[in-house]
Parts: sequence; structure tokens; C-alpha cells
Amino acid sequence: MSAPLEGARSRRAGSTRRQFLLGGAVAGVGAVAAVGVDLALNRQESAAKPVSAPMNGELTVPFFGVHQAGVDTAAQAHGVFLGLDLREDVDRDGLTRLMRILTDDAARLTQGLPALADSEPELALSPARLTITFGFGPGLVARAAGAGPSWLAPLPAFRVDQLRPEFSDGDLLVQVAGDDPLTVAHATRMLLKDARGFASIRWTQQGFRRAHGTERPGTTMRNLFGQVDGTTNPEPGTEQFDEVVWSADGWLAGGTGMVIRRIRMDLDKWDRLDRSGRDASVGRTLANGAPLTGTEEFDEPDFEATTAIGFPVIAPFAHIRRARGEGNEHIFRRAYNYDERPLGTEVSESGLIFVSFQADVERQFIPMQRRLDELDLLNEWTVPIGSAVFAIPPGCAEGGFIGETLLD
Amino acid sequence: MSAPLEGARSRRAGSTRRQFLLGGAVAGVGAVAAVGVDLALNRQESAAKPVSAPMNGELTVPFFGVHQAGVDTAAQAHGVFLGLDLREDVDRDGLTRLMRILTDDAARLTQGLPALADSEPELALSPARLTITFGFGPGLVARAAGAGPSWLAPLPAFRVDQLRPEFSDGDLLVQVAGDDPLTVAHATRMLLKDARGFASIRWTQQGFRRAHGTERPGTTMRNLFGQVDGTTNPEPGTEQFDEVVWSADGWLAGGTGMVIRRIRMDLDKWDRLDRSGRDASVGRTLANGAPLTGTEEFDEPDFEATTAIGFPVIAPFAHIRRARGEGNEHIFRRAYNYDERPLGTEVSESGLIFVSFQADVERQFIPMQRRLDELDLLNEWTVPIGSAVFAIPPGCAEGGFIGETLLD
Ligand code: HEM
Ligand code: HEM
Repeated sequence: MSAPLEGARSRRAGSTRRQFLLGGAVAGVGAVAAVGVDLALNRQESAAKPVSAPMNGELTVPFFGVHQAGVDTAAQAHGVFLGLDLREDVDRDGLTRLMRILTDDAARLTQGLPALADSEPELALSPARLTITFGFGPGLVARAAGAGPSWLAPLPAFRVDQLRPEFSDGDLLVQVAGDDPLTVAHATRMLLKDARGFASIRWTQQGFRRAHGTERPGTTMRNLFGQVDGTTNPEPGTEQFDEVVWSADGWLAGGTGMVIRRIRMDLDKWDRLDRSGRDASVGRTLANGAPLTGTEEFDEPDFEATTAIGFPVIAPFAHIRRARGEGNEHIFRRAYNYDERPLGTEVSESGLIFVSFQADVERQFIPMQRRLDELDLLNEWTVPIGSAVFAIPPGCAEGGFIGETLLD
Repeated sequence: MSAPLEGARSRRAGSTRRQFLLGGAVAGVGAVAAVGVDLALNRQESAAKPVSAPMNGELTVPFFGVHQAGVDTAAQAHGVFLGLDLREDVDRDGLTRLMRILTDDAARLTQGLPALADSEPELALSPARLTITFGFGPGLVARAAGAGPSWLAPLPAFRVDQLRPEFSDGDLLVQVAGDDPLTVAHATRMLLKDARGFASIRWTQQGFRRAHGTERPGTTMRNLFGQVDGTTNPEPGTEQFDEVVWSADGWLAGGTGMVIRRIRMDLDKWDRLDRSGRDASVGRTLANGAPLTGTEEFDEPDFEATTAIGFPVIAPFAHIRRARGEGNEHIFRRAYNYDERPLGTEVSESGLIFVSFQADVERQFIPMQRRLDELDLLNEWTVPIGSAVFAIPPGCAEGGFIGETLLD
């Protein structure tokens, strides 16, 4: 590592440690001072010198912390998901080496520093809220001779599934998310280069949400059906979120479980449905995402309400009724849209990279997916074509590495 | 068209007409007032009411004007390029109908209004500087029984070419560019839906540059080799730009010529080259894009300078020496990076969607590309895999349509 970078790195340490104590969910700026979202922390420093609004490209999300970043981080505009398969000869030691290297890459790249031996160091200098998150598949945990949580396995088969191996399973998950597509492309490549002695690419999925600056922060995203998607979701920083998302068990304590499903959306078929049919299929309006029994997006849906002639306003087949069920299970959704070059006569090849985080995939996700498999009008226009489950290990402190609780 | 949209449309007319007079290169905001880049125009209105900084999603680029937008528009973060083939039965009348429909779609979508019968109208409401630009290939001009410029034909074959038909040629080009990926995806789909009765997709290319807000406006982009790419380029609004870009001939007056070449960049091979080799291959430094004979990006390269032992500082094979030649030809480059899901054992499938605009492809582009074909060290790491030439017709006024000078 060259001297100037070393300097930048150590200047940052103080701020990183302070943020570590706060759980790692605070955004800082560049290397030196933390501004913007982090203003409250630095009131004294900020008062001393005038702070001009930072460019979004300069914003960083701390890497080190109790939890990995990229779960409770406000979703960035671009997300790339990599499913890697370990080479046959990678044993527990090899895994440890791999995770040490990838941790070091991620710790640097997310802070706007080039990776060690970065081949295009200039492309690393605009972090734009980059986060890099690692997940372990069943194969990796077995290779580490560790015991995984019981839910760490491919999901049971569902009737709706038309899974393709090229979008399913895998040993190691890498989620690279950031507000700048060039930064994300560069980070992805650096990670893949450092991983390729240990693993090969099984699948890659590229997704997007609204760009930074398109809408006010906190606006719920829309998917390619035009639906407001993500309204009823635990809110990071709340007790509910912590309960739903973070695991307390063994090496996974402070980590979570991730389900990633590639769900194709048939836009042509969807477009043949009229607006009231679309609203009914979910139980919320396309216009602003309000439940059919309310007027504002965050109005609580009334599942008991009936029409003048006695039918439920939110139909029995409506996606939100089926997803909610008795209201006993909760997951945290953090999805991305995908829209690829269509091949053949199609006008679009589009869908949702459905991503959910939950402490226990078996207890929280599977019952919900079972209900949706049995009945959910949205199934008319959607088909899961990829599926994978990963254990997301907890974060680590400086000097440590992601996966140390399993591998050390 | 529903009443509220009609209202929004007519409230905008005044601003659109004012901008038309200025040549169509001014950005307005939403429908009602023009702010931001457009501030100077509206000093009186702005003084009357406090204007809060608009979200980037609200910014619009006028559609109607002497020139089509998307050429002299500061390049947006995302660009999708569509090459369409006309169906056999589309004659001159059919073409006119097609271009009237697509013009109407573009006029609405770029201003943040849904297209007529928009299937997901909510996805149209954040224009984020969306521009939609149309280009005519040789086949389309022939179908219109028109005479195209002599250069409107596939480029001559070059030794470096490894062209694939799935990225080459086509009758109708649609360039959809904007700062928001969801807006771009939606607009692309609406245009394709309206075109599909007339044409089929031949190719699609999706590209990106830095996100809005990552860097200060006006920062030259970097490509995936990490190079500062676009330094020596005519500047929109200057006389030089107008001369280089806009045609004065026949139905193309106010239009231009477009070359789009998909150039694969072998990042793995590039990474094996050391930094001084990389700097030498172009004649500029990776660090800040300065010529090897200078220190700042915009320093004028000194092609005569020699080293102590008499070698030229900017080598004979350097890309900028070869591209510039005697300095007689100029083009305007507006490229996008591409980075697709790699297949097989590759770690990346990346490159440049090279796009250049010039009034006369034959006189301006071809001699330059010939020189680069003969000698250019960059050829070691780049391979053109797609190529197409289009005539970009002039813009139109409200009530008119793109292509009217050829078709009417
Ligand atoms: C392409 C497929 C899918 C689409 C287009 C979709 C769309 C939506 C929409 C529009 C909503 C209402 C707004 C909101 O609260 O976010 C919603 C809610 C929800 N969805 Fe989905 N969804 C899909 C797949 C799934 C899957 C696979 C699951 C889990 C197995 C799921 C679980 C949920 C949950 C838990 C809610 C909140 C329900 C509540 O109000 O309690 N969704 N989804
Ligand atoms: C992947 C392929 C290519 C790459 C990576 C590339 C990269 C670059 C770079 C880094 C520069 C220097 C900075 C600048 O002025 O923009 C440059 C300059 C230039 N390039 Fe390219 N280029 C490519 C292909 C082409 C092609 C196909 C043409 C035209 C046939 C072209 C024409 C030019 C011109 C005219 C200049 C400015 C030269 C001058 O200083 O006068 N480039 N290119």
C-alpha cells in the first residue's frame, strides 16, 4: 500500500471506530470528516469549519461494525449480486485466506480507497455509498466444517417455480451495491479478480432502483409493474427491525439470513390487465400504493372491510393479504429491478431481484412463500426463475474479517 | 389525453416555445417553471417566488427544437440504444405514421408525462433529463424513397473489426438517455411497444457513465480502462461544435450523422500492462488525463516534444496522435460504458459503446478510423464487435414530427 493511501486510511480510523460503536449504519463522507447524515455526530467539528454539501459520490457507509453493511443501509441505486462456486481444492484454510482478502478489498473500496494492487485505482475514488456484503451458502459452511443454521439449504420446491440453475444456489454470495454504476462495476471486478483463484462465477444479477437524487430520500421504490413496492417493511433502526433481521445464534449472531429469488415479470401480460384488476391483484392502488381501504400509502389496510354487496374490499387472492397471513411472520425486503437486453421477439426481459433478510428463513420466509404459492393473484404475471439462500455472517472490527466467527 | 395532463401540457407551451427560440438546449424543470440551468431565462419569475432546488428527477430537457435533444445534451448517466428493423410491409405512409407516434411518445415522456395509453403512467413522472433521439439507417431512407447522404451506409471494413450482426446496422435507431435507470427502462419499453407493429428489435445496447451527483458537473467521464475519456471534444454551444456536428444539407439540415460502434475492451489483458505502458498507449496519463507533455487534463499536447534521447514523448503509436492526425477532422464523442453479465470463465464482458456525431461521416469519421486501424496501440486491448451508421434528422416544432423533412 502506498504512503498517501496509508495516510488516508489512518486519518479515517477515528471516525470509523466512533461509527462502529453506533452499529455501523451511519454514512460518513470521504475519508476525513463525517458530514451529511452523520452531522449530529460531528457537531463540534462541523461548527469549527464551514462544511459545503458533499457530492453524493463522496458519501461512504462504514464497513466495520457489528453487522455487515448493505442490509440496513438505505438501498442504493445499483445492486450487483454474484453467486460463486468454490473450487474443489479450497479447504478451511483457503476459505479463511479468501475471506481475509475479500474483507480487505471491501474495507478499502467502500471507503473510496483502491483495493491492494487495484488495476484501475482511479475508478475507486467515488464510493457513492458503496457497500459490499458477503453471504455463505450451504456448500461453504460444509467446507468450513461448520454447522449451519437448519434453514441454510435450497428452499423447498414451490408449484410456481421454474428455477434455472444459472440463477440458483451457490457457495458464496457477494452483494455489491452503490449509487454509481461505474463504482459498482469496478468494485465487482476487483472482487472477482481476487476471488478467481478460489472460486468461479455461477451467476451474476444486475439490478437497479431509482437513481440517487431522482426523488426525495425515503420515497418507496416502484417496480417495473409500476407498483409501489416496499411499503410494509420493518424500518432499520427500530426494535422490530432488529428482531426480524438479526440472528442471535452461534457464529451467525449479528448476522442474518438472505433469500434471493429472481422473479420474471411478464410485462406484456400485465399490460393487458386493466387498472382496477391491477389494484385488486395486490390490494393496493397503483396511483400511490394506498391500501384499497385507505387513501394514503401508509394507511393500515383493513382486511375486514367489505363492499356494499358483502365482498371483501381486499380480495382473498390479493398479494398483501396472502403475504401477511395472520401477521405472525415478518421479513425485510430489499429488492432490485432488472431489465435486460431482450432476446428474440420479446419486448422486455424484466423482473424483480427479490431479496429478503430475516433471522430465520424457515420460520419467517417459508410460511409466507408457501401461502403465496397456494394463492396469490400476482402469480399470474410472475415466475420465479432463480432461488438461493445464504447466511450473512456478522460484521467485523478493523483487523478482523467477515466470516471469522465461523472460520477462526 | 385526460384533462389534467392536457393542462400540464399547455402550461408548458410558453416555456417550450421560448426555449425553442434558443435552440432547444436549455433544461427546464417539470412542467411549470424553468429553473436550474434555465435560471437566467426566468430571472423575473424566479425573483417573484422563492425557488427551492429541484430534485434531479424533475429536470427536463426540451424535446422540440431546431436540433434533436440527446446530441448536445450533457451526457446523462444511462443510455440505451435500440437498433430496429422495419417490417417488410411498412411503406412511406407507414413510416410517417410510425414517426408521428414515436415523436408523440418522446415529446411526452421527456417532459415527465405518460405516453398516450401508457401502461405504467406512474413510471413516467420523473424525467431526470430524459432525451429520446431518433436516427435513420440506409434501409429506412430507401423505404421513404428518399435520397440519403452518400455516407449513410455501413462503414468500410477495417482490419480490427470482428463485427457481429447482432450488434450492427439496422433501419431505425432510438437512443434513450436519462439520469434515472427506471425512467429509461420505462421509456424504452413504451417506445418499443408502439414500434412493434412496424419494426422488430435487431439489437439493444445498455450503457452507463457516472451517476448524476457522483462528481461535479462537467467532469470528464472515465471508461472501464480507468482512462479519462472525452477530453478533446468540441464543446456544445461553441461555433466549432456547430460546424463539426450539424449538417446543412437537404432534409438533414439541423441534423447530424451518428456512428455507433460496440468496442469490446479486454480488461484482463489491459491489467497485465504496467501504468507507464498504459499512459504511453494513449499519450495521456491515467492519473488525471493530462497529455504526457503536460500536467493538467486540458493542457494542449505537444506532439513535437522529444525525450532526452530523442524519442517523441507522445509515441507514434499513441491513440491521441493517431486519432488527431493532421488535425483536419473532428468528431463529437458521446460514449457509454457497458458491463454485462460475464458468461463462461470470463470475469468481465465490458467495453465502450462508442458514439460519435459528425455532419459528414465520410469526411470526418472514416479517415480517423482508417488511421486508427493502421496503427493505434489501443487496438491491442480493444475489438470492435458492432457497427452502425445513422442519419439523425433535425428536431421539429410542436405539431411536427421527427423525420418530417424526409417524409412530408
Ligand atoms: C415479482 C414478485 C413480487 C412483486 C411484484 C411484489 C409486489 C408487492 C407489492 C406491490 C406489495 C405492496 C406494497 C408493499 O408493502 O411493499 C407487496 C407487499 C408484500 N410482499 Fe410482495 N411482491 C412480489 C413477491 C413477493 C415474495 C416472493 C414475497 C415473499 C415470499 C413477498 C412478500 C411481500 C410482503 C411480506 C409484503 C407486505 C405485506 C403486508 O402488507 O404485510 N412478495 N409486494
Ligand atoms: C474502446 C475504444 C477506445 C478507447 C478506450 C478510447 C480512449 C480514448 C482516450 C482515453 C482518449 C484521450 C482523452 C480524450 O481526449 O478523450 C481518446 C481520445 C480520442 N479518441 Fe479515442 N478511444 C477509443 C476509440 C476511438 C475511436 C473508435 C475513435 C474514432 C474513430 C476515437 C477517437 C478519438 C479522438 C478523436 C480523440 C481525441 C484526440 C485528440 O486529442 O485530438 N477513439 N480516446
